[in-house]
Amino acid sequence: MTGKVYLVGAGPGAPDLLTLRAARLLETADVVLHDALVHPDTLALAKRAHLVDVGKRYGKVSTEQRFIHRALVAAAQSHAVVVRLKGGDPMLFGRAQEEIEALARAGIECEVVPGVTAALAAAATLRVSLTRRGIARTVAFLTPRVGRDENASAWIPAALGCDTVVLYMAAGASQSISASLIEAGKRADTPAVLVESATLADEARLFTTLGELAAASLPRAQGPVVMAIGDVFREASAIEALARQEPRRHAL
Amino acid sequence: MTGKVYLVGAGPGAPDLLTLRAARLLETADVVLHDALVHPDTLALAKRAHLVDVGKRYGKVSTEQRFIHRALVAAAQSHAVVVRLKGGDPMLFGRAQEEIEALARAGIECEVVPGVTAALAAAATLRVSLTRRGIARTVAFLTPRVGRDENASAWIPAALGCDTVVLYMAAGASQSISASLIEAGKRADTPAVLVESATLADEARLFTTLGELAAASLPRAQGPVVMAIGDVFREASAIEALARQEPRRHAL
Repeated sequence: MTGKVYLVGAGPGAPDLLTLRAARLLETADVVLHDALVHPDTLALAKRAHLVDVGKRYGKVSTEQRFIHRALVAAAQSHAVVVRLKGGDPMLFGRAQEEIEALARAGIECEVVPGVTAALAAAATLRVSLTRRGIARTVAFLTPRVGRDENASAWIPAALGCDTVVLYMAAGASQSISASLIEAGKRADTPAVLVESATLADEARLFTTLGELAAASLPRAQGPVVMAIGDVFREASAIEALARQEPRRHAL
Repeated sequence: MTGKVYLVGAGPGAPDLLTLRAARLLETADVVLHDALVHPDTLALAKRAHLVDVGKRYGKVSTEQRFIHRALVAAAQSHAVVVRLKGGDPMLFGRAQEEIEALARAGIECEVVPGVTAALAAAATLRVSLTRRGIARTVAFLTPRVGRDENASAWIPAALGCDTVVLYMAAGASQSISASLIEAGKRADTPAVLVESATLADEARLFTTLGELAAASLPRAQGPVVMAIGDVFREASAIEALARQEPRRHAL
């Protein structure tokens, strides 16, 4: 018997931002190979399944990719329903193509179930649309994280060409990202927002600008960080600044 | 009593690609104002609710936006749970900011529930990751549709700056989009894929190139169309071409 592998998006963090299809697949799964940061309540849906933590933390490779391929193939060779559960959506920064190809080479059927990606969860929690009439009609999703064989500044034209830019896996890199963008011609007063652990109880956010981010390094983040840049954030940023001043005003 | 409005993503089409949170909100909603193309099975979840079709077809404005604002405010002034259900994700090409601001002006609380966006549903159904090591690290989401006050070619730098490009609301515009991109310097053999009604029973897809699309206009689409461009689609395109030749080979 050869089973089928489902590459499933676990969504941005909160367990109820999983899709109905993903929830049903987890309920029927025999084996679930999951990223490290998937919520325990999401994993708890997989009542029947053998759970395997393959240790990926939103793009950081902790488990050797080849090990994941071998484990997926082995699981499908002895189980009917195998779920490969990935943070966010599988088709954005998830190395899904490598897993799809490894399964194809082994003659194993594969299906992809999309999920809510972190950028859209961050937009929802900030209540700022990534597009907006007259302000932003183009959005880039990218990661500045660089592999050995890749050009370190290849992402910059994308970031300059789009009205709104969302950077994935930006934790620890906000200072160098901001400095690079200002050097490439972005205004230092361009609004920037960092959202850590979007949609989870310990969610944190920082409304700032490229100039401020370039000037100082931030404390180390505890969870995954999405960094968003663009004029769509200007008003939310101003409201946030006002809210910070409120208590002081009342004290006068 | 003033209620709360939830701007909720209905996902790309298939009713089981709704999130668990969205499903629960629909179940408890008193009023649901929904886009025209939301699946009937999704609407059926809103058992208690008064349903109002506000007639938007994935970005085409059929109902005057101001009417939607007034209807949202009126609904929240007399009901506890009001859902504004939008195709895909609310924060991409959904004019959500205008609705959020109208609610804020009326003093009505508002929360956004993200959804699976059409680009990621198309990637899933094509089994092609939008990013890929060594091939694509940047993705643009954009729409070539132009408002009166906007520059008709403002989207081109975004499309040129990113490795993978997904165009929303591309139905009927693929020929002019492709011609514009080739004129701006994109290679005519750049792989392009059109996906119509992604994740639904009548889903259709066309693997082609910018050059082919620029050369001929396509028949009118029946459902919403996503157009995706980039080298990540080259292999899937080749496999598709091979599959098309298979029957002929067998006939020889």
